[in-house]
Amino acid sequence: MAAPSEDALRRALAARKAAVDAQAEALKALKVEAGAAARRLQQAVGAGAGGAAREELRQAVVNTLERKLFYIPSFKIYRGVAGLYDYGPPGCRVKANVLSFWRQHFVLEENMLEVDCPCVTPEVVLKASGHVEKFTDLMVKDEKTGTCYRADHLLKDFCKEKLEKDLALPQEKADEFKRILAILDDLSAEELGAKIKEYGIVAPDTKNPLSDPYPFNLMFQTSIGPTGLSVGYMRPETAQGIFVNFKDLYYYNGQKLPFAAAQIGQAFRNEISPRQGLLRVREFTLAEIEHFVDPEDKSHPKFVDVADLEFLMFPRELQLSGESAKLMKLGEAVSKGTVNNETLGYFIGRVYLFLTSLGIDKGRLRFRQHLPNEMAHYAADCWDAEIECSYGWIECVGIADRSAYDLKAHTDKSGVPLVAHEKFSKPREVEKLVIVPSKKDLGLAFKGNQKMVLEALEAMSEKEAFEMKAELETKGETNFKVCTLGKDVVITKKMVSISMEKKLEHQRVFTPSVVEPSFGIGRIIYCLFEHSFYTRPSKSEEEQLNVFRFPPLVAPIKCTVFPLVKNQEFDDAAKVIAKALTTAGISHIIDTTAISIGRRYARTDEIGVPFAVTVDSATNVTIRERDSKEQVRVDIDEVAPVVKQLTEGQSTWTDVSAKYPAHVGPQSEQE
Amino acid sequence: MAAPSEDALRRALAARKAAVDAQAEALKALKVEAGAAARRLQQAVGAGAGGAAREELRQAVVNTLERKLFYIPSFKIYRGVAGLYDYGPPGCRVKANVLSFWRQHFVLEENMLEVDCPCVTPEVVLKASGHVEKFTDLMVKDEKTGTCYRADHLLKDFCKEKLEKDLALPQEKADEFKRILAILDDLSAEELGAKIKEYGIVAPDTKNPLSDPYPFNLMFQTSIGPTGLSVGYMRPETAQGIFVNFKDLYYYNGQKLPFAAAQIGQAFRNEISPRQGLLRVREFTLAEIEHFVDPEDKSHPKFVDVADLEFLMFPRELQLSGESAKLMKLGEAVSKGTVNNETLGYFIGRVYLFLTSLGIDKGRLRFRQHLPNEMAHYAADCWDAEIECSYGWIECVGIADRSAYDLKAHTDKSGVPLVAHEKFSKPREVEKLVIVPSKKDLGLAFKGNQKMVLEALEAMSEKEAFEMKAELETKGETNFKVCTLGKDVVITKKMVSISMEKKLEHQRVFTPSVVEPSFGIGRIIYCLFEHSFYTRPSKSEEEQLNVFRFPPLVAPIKCTVFPLVKNQEFDDAAKVIAKALTTAGISHIIDTTAISIGRRYARTDEIGVPFAVTVDSATNVTIRERDSKEQVRVDIDEVAPVVKQLTEGQSTWTDVSAKYPAHVGPQSEQE
Repeated sequence: MAAPSEDALRRALAARKAAVDAQAEALKALKVEAGAAARRLQQAVGAGAGGAAREELRQAVVNTLERKLFYIPSFKIYRGVAGLYDYGPPGCRVKANVLSFWRQHFVLEENMLEVDCPCVTPEVVLKASGHVEKFTDLMVKDEKTGTCYRADHLLKDFCKEKLEKDLALPQEKADEFKRILAILDDLSAEELGAKIKEYGIVAPDTKNPLSDPYPFNLMFQTSIGPTGLSVGYMRPETAQGIFVNFKDLYYYNGQKLPFAAAQIGQAFRNEISPRQGLLRVREFTLAEIEHFVDPEDKSHPKFVDVADLEFLMFPRELQLSGESAKLMKLGEAVSKGTVNNETLGYFIGRVYLFLTSLGIDKGRLRFRQHLPNEMAHYAADCWDAEIECSYGWIECVGIADRSAYDLKAHTDKSGVPLVAHEKFSKPREVEKLVIVPSKKDLGLAFKGNQKMVLEALEAMSEKEAFEMKAELETKGETNFKVCTLGKDVVITKKMVSISMEKKLEHQRVFTPSVVEPSFGIGRIIYCLFEHSFYTRPSKSEEEQLNVFRFPPLVAPIKCTVFPLVKNQEFDDAAKVIAKALTTAGISHIIDTTAISIGRRYARTDEIGVPFAVTVDSATNVTIRERDSKEQVRVDIDEVAPVVKQLTEGQSTWTDVSAKYPAHVGPQSEQE
Repeated sequence: MAAPSEDALRRALAARKAAVDAQAEALKALKVEAGAAARRLQQAVGAGAGGAAREELRQAVVNTLERKLFYIPSFKIYRGVAGLYDYGPPGCRVKANVLSFWRQHFVLEENMLEVDCPCVTPEVVLKASGHVEKFTDLMVKDEKTGTCYRADHLLKDFCKEKLEKDLALPQEKADEFKRILAILDDLSAEELGAKIKEYGIVAPDTKNPLSDPYPFNLMFQTSIGPTGLSVGYMRPETAQGIFVNFKDLYYYNGQKLPFAAAQIGQAFRNEISPRQGLLRVREFTLAEIEHFVDPEDKSHPKFVDVADLEFLMFPRELQLSGESAKLMKLGEAVSKGTVNNETLGYFIGRVYLFLTSLGIDKGRLRFRQHLPNEMAHYAADCWDAEIECSYGWIECVGIADRSAYDLKAHTDKSGVPLVAHEKFSKPREVEKLVIVPSKKDLGLAFKGNQKMVLEALEAMSEKEAFEMKAELETKGETNFKVCTLGKDVVITKKMVSISMEKKLEHQRVFTPSVVEPSFGIGRIIYCLFEHSFYTRPSKSEEEQLNVFRFPPLVAPIKCTVFPLVKNQEFDDAAKVIAKALTTAGISHIIDTTAISIGRRYARTDEIGVPFAVTVDSATNVTIRERDSKEQVRVDIDEVAPVVKQLTEGQSTWTDVSAKYPAHVGPQSEQE
């Protein structure tokens, strides 16, 4: 499950928390609150002085991305739709490369069962998953125009504005606004509404009064079939398609655990008012893995392969004590219990390798553990891969141990048991609680209510049953609460017999736990763009040139071919090279535009092409590496094999420049 | 644009036809009708005697596909949703392989500009494209229960049932039912309704009376944003996302024509009552190409590469004369004008190569030209790649020259000119019509209506203008119809001056034509499954074994590795081989189940794995080819390179069996 529903779950959890025994938890909760407060405040107000520089970087990146059609605001000629973007040609290729690597790194490497389910989803599935009820944001409406706003956004903007611009703000008020920013996510509709009223917040565009906040479901709703009676939604995540297929997939896998299923596909979230440009959009690509595992054995045979990895981790304790993320060895994090289990740890390691292979900067990547109040109540542990970009630390991958929650929810709703079996090599003797109510005595005592009492007796836990047995044996009768009747009844000794009996069992039947790494592909790609972007002066130093330092794995095009000047001989040589590149499966373009070679280099640097071949002779040519701007001279026949080895990682630029003569000639970087 | 909207366009066209000069077209229409009738009748009643065999084949294929999880009815544990299917693990890999090959064969090979646009589409875009108005099917409702049916389906079922089962049917009636089946697609709502009444057709499930037919829009509707005021639809095709981006893509391509854009993605069609299993579904993957070309030059530089291809073509003339498709050379089809132009012909050839590379049987693939009444009025020519399967000839790829229609529609609606420019090397003198109304005289004559008359005068075509000029010169005045006023007015000589003037032009501005190959990926894959499926007896001849003869390009897994018996030595050798296969990028599985090797072969044959490696020694092993069942013996180190060359097409099984010793040993095909 991706970021989208976290807000909603968090709110649901906040409500649930109230029910938890307040005294025992009080001290811990206080600490959590303080730690969470510090973190959220920092996120809300930005990194202070760095804010302007970040904004400037973002503008430079986004300008380049839009100018080179990495992205295009969708339906632009019709003035677009907020929160919808197209990937243009280079962006589309980057996306295809990222997904293809994802499939290789996760699906093929681990022999996962990949599935491909529809986006249109019937209501019953999303009722079972909780999305129909809880996948909501709180909204307020301009009472005159009907324009809608996210309630928390308005309160956040108000507090930030006051803190940043009101120089006469008393300390007391400032502290209050800071506190609100810190607990914003946990406020109920009533609390948000009260604050909006108290501060006199009005509609930003019209200054009209606002409605009370109310929940707005973020799923795009539609109707399946022609009758209008069958409600459907565009899926908010791909995971449910996997859960509902658990039974078939388990059989397909020879009824063995663990196994993982995976899915890549579109997901939808009808944002109230999309912000944060490319990071919060109404339609996005998710890549999700559901790794099903025996809850009693979460070890992972390949954990050793990632145990020595060391990277920035931000466990709960560091967040609560106000410290920063720190370098930790994954193996230690698991052995010390910081990370709940090996399987979860294995995926954290694999996600780290995935992201850094794409070109995400290790220094701006951390794994942050969810605080207790952030986590769904059923989750055993949860870590987010967060990437730092100009918008702050962005959750790009969620890696959660969701225990048996999802499979149980669909088992309950569908009536189809989504369970696994462990066959014992020889039958095991187990003690089982046996409760035998006496129908006759219950009937005499409770008449029409007999069935409810009987069911309640049969549903007792072991503990309840033995407490009852003890009371019945000492006092002969006991009070018993029957929830379905809404009252206590008196149970006497002859109405029920309670005992433990020995039984032979041939197998264990259980609901598997699921460890779920969920990737927001668009967010990863956007952060990758920021991390890959830099500028450098042109040769004449008159302008700054933009460069994306994509690794070949990600680069939209691996190689460009430039005939130095327009002439038949060079054009023919360029065609020979292009043909060899095609045969080798290397994406490339020939650029014969009559502009200087320096300008042509700059043009391909700007879309991150790692290698450029300049044809300045019919027999041998130069290959230029994008970031070092170094050039080597190779024979025409060698171009394709050299570029292939470079792009497929079999050799590095250092190898190549050691092997072939360097070229410093008249055509190098003329601008 | 894919199959989906053809029905609707066809109906729209039928209405339009009425306006066409009836006399001149009468003879031609008669012929068209006859030809179309024959074709449709054949489709509607099936191939007669072959029907049962086809049904049996289909059952065998579909059973295998569902049992091996190529497909899974979506949301099965909730009793599913008609017309929605998941791809399970092997199906998902086949789909990924097909799409990856599509990208290589079309996008990379032709340097197309691939884009990736959202599924959620605002209404304005689909109003411009005509989908809001015309993307409909005619529906009837059970008047008591509200159950919906496709009106044409009910009439079709009625006629077929009568023809097949009513032995006492008079010849006259039989002819009438046959005629109805032939013209079913062209019937209006009124005509359909009249027939339903005449024949007393009732709701099939309840026998209740039915409503009159009325159009039901097949798009899934939703609402964008929280206000409920902004209507959106799930796109019915991917093409519109490309058209609205034409301007940016044209600039990206250096303002040069021709160029092609491409898109792979989900499309949606809210079928009234889905039939035909996997062929007509509510959500499907399309892969579409929009090749933009100067309407004055539709030659294609690479046409020579496909001109010598020879395959089954079914041009209009053969259909009209009742003949069958016949083998034609593509080069001749274009030079004789059977195919409208080289660009269209080039894509027909490329589609042929694409489909046959996947494993589509050449003998069950034909290119059928649209009849005049099937084609949208704006289309210059249109050919469907039809594949024969148990459902008959199925349109899997549409290849249409749609002229300038789509770009013009979006230019009109958005006000943004989607045009191309041809800069002249030197300015050209052209004659241009100049209409100069006299505002003063128009004002005096028409007062408040002056503006409408003026605009109507300026909007005259060259022909209208010169007829007016002639009348004004001979009679001094003329009647002139002003549509916006809804009446004729009298125009006198002094009110307008009409002349031709010579002008120098520096460029030509025009709307490009678009040639659109549109691939229904799911339909292609389903037909591929049928074409690849066969059965053969097990060794003991006690049962029939299922095989999919997928080429390695398509096969979900390229290779399986079987340790012959459970022992450490063989297991270790299998791991060494698996590691080498992973490094070589060959997807594979190790199957260590303790069942006979013959059963394990049968199991992988059934999901179409082309090569199986059996480990019966620690130093050398056998490789088995799926269809011939031949085995060769190779050293362990050679397994990965040999399988890689086989799967990547660098060597054939014939090469391999010539080079390595054949193996006929105890482990071959034990069942």
